[in-house]
Amino acid sequence: MALKKVSDSRSFGGVQQVWSHESEATGCTMRFGLYLPPQAAHGHVPVLWWLSGLTCTEENFIVKAGAQRVAAELGMALVAPDTSPRGIALPGDREAWDFGVGASFYVDATREPWSRHYQMRRYITEELRGLVAAEFPLDDSRTAMSGHSMGGHGALTIALTCPNWIRSLSAFAPISSPMRCPWGEKALKGYLGEDRSSWATSDATALLISKGWSGPPILVDQGEADPFMATQLRPELLEAACAVAQVPLQLRRQPGYDHGYFFVSSFIEDHLRYHRSQL
Amino acid sequence: MALKKVSDSRSFGGVQQVWSHESEATGCTMRFGLYLPPQAAHGHVPVLWWLSGLTCTEENFIVKAGAQRVAAELGMALVAPDTSPRGIALPGDREAWDFGVGASFYVDATREPWSRHYQMRRYITEELRGLVAAEFPLDDSRTAMSGHSMGGHGALTIALTCPNWIRSLSAFAPISSPMRCPWGEKALKGYLGEDRSSWATSDATALLISKGWSGPPILVDQGEADPFMATQLRPELLEAACAVAQVPLQLRRQPGYDHGYFFVSSFIEDHLRYHRSQL
Repeated sequence: MALKKVSDSRSFGGVQQVWSHESEATGCTMRFGLYLPPQAAHGHVPVLWWLSGLTCTEENFIVKAGAQRVAAELGMALVAPDTSPRGIALPGDREAWDFGVGASFYVDATREPWSRHYQMRRYITEELRGLVAAEFPLDDSRTAMSGHSMGGHGALTIALTCPNWIRSLSAFAPISSPMRCPWGEKALKGYLGEDRSSWATSDATALLISKGWSGPPILVDQGEADPFMATQLRPELLEAACAVAQVPLQLRRQPGYDHGYFFVSSFIEDHLRYHRSQL
Repeated sequence: MALKKVSDSRSFGGVQQVWSHESEATGCTMRFGLYLPPQAAHGHVPVLWWLSGLTCTEENFIVKAGAQRVAAELGMALVAPDTSPRGIALPGDREAWDFGVGASFYVDATREPWSRHYQMRRYITEELRGLVAAEFPLDDSRTAMSGHSMGGHGALTIALTCPNWIRSLSAFAPISSPMRCPWGEKALKGYLGEDRSSWATSDATALLISKGWSGPPILVDQGEADPFMATQLRPELLEAACAVAQVPLQLRRQPGYDHGYFFVSSFIEDHLRYHRSQL
């Protein structure tokens, strides 16, 4: 598996890198960010995967979240994949910021033409997982996952369906139930087709009820000034599903915070320390 | 003075804002970033001005440096001006990334057509200084200044010529002497004209010798893997000028670090704590 180094910068005594590779799952060149803390020079380290939100690339979290400082202190690696395939011309893939490029929703598309490339779930849980575990000093058996908005939902669905991989789970302002919000309905219809019964395996609230979660409590931060909270994110649906499924949820509503990375950066330290304590 | 709020996001219990206003000095609409820590709700707070480098806007430092966390803890405000006038069409102002838009070098241009708008030194030291002191709970008598690359040089020149305003001074990978590097020679020739004798009041090493500095030691971080160090930044010239002028300099050469914001973010905490201790 040929990895190409795109960039490599020292950061808090470790290294913040961007890598690219030809992906079998998505049939295109993919990029991901990798932070290796100083401790990775001496052995395998636990890792936090971060899934970004709509319109993002692998760069947003790397540049804006300020996570490296705490990761360096705690000896955790950070893996930040891109949010969709890139460089493929599918009809309509760049017409909207909430569908197509930058908006994979981390599902494996079943509908043509998306199914040929939009295999982001398989890309992350199989291909990229295997690649980074083989190539870098990461302890795959101590993996946590988090993400923001669409990526927060991605983290929930991947963790709930891969509990043997993801040992600790959190999210920032996640979409709670794409089956029940405009962003999600558009995406699931596009990638999975009109049959709503096929959507449940890509919906975090449905998965909570069908699969449960026996890991540590799920930590979720939600800004109360987030303009998408009431219509798209709907944290009350996550709360309700966790209550039904008897899954412990720590949902923290943060007064005054909006949906952006100033919100994420304000609380990323709490999430990293929480995950480190669980791994 | 009419200020328009461009954005306003809660960050570490304070607020990260962007404001715009019509500038008399530059004859155009200018933007600046302002971080107000939680303590600013209760009274005037000390302030760090940050001057950014080539190609930057008011956004880079706000988004990438991770300074808000420490500023919130220390009760310091952050003011981040833009790096040049914007929205004016001068011949050649967008042809190169090291001259014109995004590349003011924080001088008051004397050469046409730049002199009409490129009055960034006056903009910062008079207009914006007065504006933010009047409009926000900032303690102008406790002001520190820092910056990166071209902005590190800007901080040096402004502090050395405004010692009654700037009480504490630092820089990240500053251009040491624009009179003696390609970026600087191009800029000073363009903004000030061919006569090199007019350049000395815009050169930090010349100002160190002519004006001295009776403030606390100047803190400078320089990455040793910075590709611009040998040809453009030339920290040895800053060291030599400080030695001649008997100005205390703490120049820290940081092994492995490059010229980017991963370098800045790794050490911004040290600079904030240093300035806070001096104010």
